[in-house]
Amino acid sequence: MLQQLSAEELPKVEKEISDFINTYTSHEELKKSMLYSIEAGGKRLRPLIILATVKAFQKELTTPVYQTAGALEMIHTYSLIHDDLPAMDDDDLRRGKLTNHKVFGDALAILAGDGLLTGAFQLLSETTLSPSETVLLIQLLAKAAGIGGMVAGQAGDMAAEKNQIPLKDLQAIHHRKTGALLTYAFVAGGILANQTEYVAELLETLGGHIGLAFQIRDDLLDIVGTTEELGKQIGQDEKSEKSTYPSLLGLEGARQALAEELGQAKIVIHQLAEVAEFQPQIFEEVLTLFDLEK
Amino acid sequence: MLQQLSAEELPKVEKEISDFINTYTSHEELKKSMLYSIEAGGKRLRPLIILATVKAFQKELTTPVYQTAGALEMIHTYSLIHDDLPAMDDDDLRRGKLTNHKVFGDALAILAGDGLLTGAFQLLSETTLSPSETVLLIQLLAKAAGIGGMVAGQAGDMAAEKNQIPLKDLQAIHHRKTGALLTYAFVAGGILANQTEYVAELLETLGGHIGLAFQIRDDLLDIVGTTEELGKQIGQDEKSEKSTYPSLLGLEGARQALAEELGQAKIVIHQLAEVAEFQPQIFEEVLTLFDLEK
Repeated sequence: MLQQLSAEELPKVEKEISDFINTYTSHEELKKSMLYSIEAGGKRLRPLIILATVKAFQKELTTPVYQTAGALEMIHTYSLIHDDLPAMDDDDLRRGKLTNHKVFGDALAILAGDGLLTGAFQLLSETTLSPSETVLLIQLLAKAAGIGGMVAGQAGDMAAEKNQIPLKDLQAIHHRKTGALLTYAFVAGGILANQTEYVAELLETLGGHIGLAFQIRDDLLDIVGTTEELGKQIGQDEKSEKSTYPSLLGLEGARQALAEELGQAKIVIHQLAEVAEFQPQIFEEVLTLFDLEK
Repeated sequence: MLQQLSAEELPKVEKEISDFINTYTSHEELKKSMLYSIEAGGKRLRPLIILATVKAFQKELTTPVYQTAGALEMIHTYSLIHDDLPAMDDDDLRRGKLTNHKVFGDALAILAGDGLLTGAFQLLSETTLSPSETVLLIQLLAKAAGIGGMVAGQAGDMAAEKNQIPLKDLQAIHHRKTGALLTYAFVAGGILANQTEYVAELLETLGGHIGLAFQIRDDLLDIVGTTEELGKQIGQDEKSEKSTYPSLLGLEGARQALAEELGQAKIVIHQLAEVAEFQPQIFEEVLTLFDLEK
């Protein structure tokens, strides 16, 4: 099911993004720079979650669904471009390819990020959803991506480098840095599928667990993964003496924490199946994406 | 009139911005960094134009007006922070104070810019305007600030450095780089004052002339101004061998081009007075802000 969504439906999300960039960008190098990072691929986890959520509630995938998923992927991609900059994480490789600034230079990479971020809100404002749904989707995205969400998480993450911080603080940082956008994916899917506020709250809880699972898995892969598998250099966290789940809990403790978050997520999925027209199988497939083995 | 708006009403715009940042930012240094650049002041030209436009159409200044003006100033401020970065224009001084990255470091300056940009859309999404007005204001702002507007203009501007380009190309760059946000200020003011589409089109034309006037004046001041007056280093354009109006038209030609744009703007103001309940005096005062003597 998820495989099918990924193979047949994600290309429609990608087309929404590239059509948008091709239509609106009035500077050739800027266009190339944005398309380079969008086309670098990756798992498209966030748009896939939006599609999976709408499908789980047994609704049709319509153009506004692809556009919302596209806007979210644009936000995610901008954040990667800016995070990779020399002034930030200073990464040369991303998804097995040179990072944006390595190809286009720092200035254009900054502008490509700014352009994708701004474009995400334009794309969302242009859907055929009702104005009130549109405002809600824009507002939640801005909150998730902004100064109480992802941007704050990134600022906290930098401060946590070269500093061992308590687990509670690390969780708060990751809740914002990666959790906020993943949570948005579930909640936006619920809104697009016309679900109740109560369901939206359950989706938010689910997103919280998935967000932490994602980060723990990411930290673990930096130790047990390979550069080839991940498309980026491993061992970076240890090199930068960054606080991570494995550095605070040990390898086995981090594995347990991951299992714990996925277990909590499963409980929420069962709750969702009790209160809505909902196919839990799709979400159980989504969970497997966060297993260490995948 | 403009003096009074500036003294009595702009502080309400500034309060909307600082309240927003203080309420939502969940990272102390990030908050400080954003407030530093917001509080660095400047003429607040863009929010002032929104207030002046609403007033010119004889409407009340309400909270949504201050919020829209605040969102626009947040976008403008983010663009200054990113433009000043070493990877971009590499400026140490802005409005007589150290630039953001000189105080907070490049990484936090990038994030402060990202946060202000994202926050502008959140703030706009939270007004009490009708959802359809809200979506329109968000869409126009994203267009003006984005990949067909300001971000593209900035990319073009960088490419034009160390290259003498034709006047037509220079105008196209400035139309996007500075014209788009100034035009937004007029058009958003018209929307907030419930004006017709025809009036909005006239406001857009007016914004185009004002945008070019602004840039020509800025280029001229880089030659005839002083660091003390401007709060930034002068002579930067010549040093970087940048294409400017004076470099293409000569000092006198640039002065004439400025007068020409302001003359065109005056014609549009008379047209506005013919079709709407409109006080032209306020706009004539606005024009004086773009005179070289001011």
